[in-house]
Order: sequence, then C-alpha cells, then structure tokens
Amino acid sequence: MELTCIHHVAYVVEDLDAALPFFTDRVGLEVKVRENLANDGVEALILGVGASAVELIAPTVADNGVARFLASRGPGLHHVAFEVPDIVVAMAELAEAGAELLDEQPRIGLGGHKVAFIHPRSWLGVLTELVEAHE
Amino acid sequence: MELTCIHHVAYVVEDLDAALPFFTDRVGLEVKVRENLANDGVEALILGVGASAVELIAPTVADNGVARFLASRGPGLHHVAFEVPDIVVAMAELAEAGAELLDEQPRIGLGGHKVAFIHPRSWLGVLTELVEAHE
Repeated sequence: MELTCIHHVAYVVEDLDAALPFFTDRVGLEVKVRENLANDGVEALILGVGASAVELIAPTVADNGVARFLASRGPGLHHVAFEVPDIVVAMAELAEAGAELLDEQPRIGLGGHKVAFIHPRSWLGVLTELVEAHE
Repeated sequence: MELTCIHHVAYVVEDLDAALPFFTDRVGLEVKVRENLANDGVEALILGVGASAVELIAPTVADNGVARFLASRGPGLHHVAFEVPDIVVAMAELAEAGAELLDEQPRIGLGGHKVAFIHPRSWLGVLTELVEAHE
C-alpha cells in the first residue's frame, strides 16, 4: 500500500470558538472547512497547514466517544489521518496484515472525503484514519 | 508566524525493530534516518510519508521521560512536529502569545534540524515540536 501524506492531525477540544483564536490570530492558520456533523454528534473544523491540516473536534452531545474522551482525558490528540490513493485497496491490505479496521466500508467524512478508521491497537496506540481525498 | 507543514508525527514504541516490519513491509514506508541519541537516552528513526514523516522513538535507558511514558501509557503518540521557516521568530511569537516553551534556545534534533518543544498545556494537550529544517 501507499501513504501519500499526513492528511491531518485531529485534536478534541471543549469548544471550537474558544480554541480557535490561538490558531488563527497567533499561529496564523486559516479555517478551510467548518461543519456540524449532527449524525456524529460533533462539530469540526479544518485549519490548513501547507498541504496538510489541523482538525479541531468538539462534541455537541454528552454521550458519544468524543464527549467521553474529553471528560476522561481533557483536550488532546484524537486521531492522525494519512492520505491514500485508493482507500478500498488500503483497507484490504491492512486487513490482510491483521490490522483491526473500525469501518467495513469507506464512509464520507469532513470535507466530502472517503474515510475509514483503524483501531489504536493496530497503529501504535493511536486512532488512525485513512483518507482518499475528494477533489 | 507561519507553519509550513506537518513535519512529522512521533510515536513511542518499546522496540524499533519489533515495530518496524508493519510499517516497512505492510504499509510500504521507507526508513530515511535512524540514530541512537545517547544524550537523550533514545533511539529514533524517520519513515518518509510524502513530504512529511512518521518518527518512531524507543527508550534506551530506564529512567527518562520516554521510558516513563511507555511504562505508564504503553505505545502511543509522543509529539506532533510542525515545520516553520524561522524557529527563532516562531519561538518569540509563541512566547509572546503566552505559550510555554520547553526550550529557551533551538537545539539540534534528529536529522540535524533546529528544533524546540512546546508544553502540551499550550497546544491542546499534545507535546508539540517546532522544526526549522536543515537542508
């Protein structure tokens, strides 16, 4: 398989609007996309960093994984996403290598990309996302 | 200030040689640099991912921060590194913004780059490295 680049690094925060000024006004990043993903119970945004990005995620409900992450650990790294040219091929190769995939099929994530998640057990203790980028 | 790209994402592992085959044979990444950093009590290597990289770090002594990280949390994300065009400027701007820097001066890191670390408290709970890349 092939990893093209680090697509983004995603952090959980309590409140997007509270976290944002440090990254926009101080670090100088720009918001590229901001979406309320009601089905996932999160609000998320993408800050461009060259060809990669920083993603900030905040829970909008009290009882999902992101809300529990925040309650138990506080703000921190949620996942690292790598871009792949063909997500179906990458998922098949990882499954064959014994990696535990959390999605059986690619699904549509933030920004309209095809995405799939890999269990932290199968990637050095870190939740890992594969992204086949949408043009 | 300006962040040029995500320079690398670094994971702590127990043993570089045990962790490596998954990333080289299965994920298809190549080792670019491998160094024993005796002063830091770690061995580290860089796997290229497009213009970015994955870094693997393993402790070579029992009593440093990396060894304690591993003992308390197991393998996991150690830090995220962002490239900057001028590390001295970036450090000054972050300090002015109230960020807590762990290095007062840039130091030479893996691959000969100038690097400085930012406390997790000042970057969404994640240890963060600034890198001014060495040509």
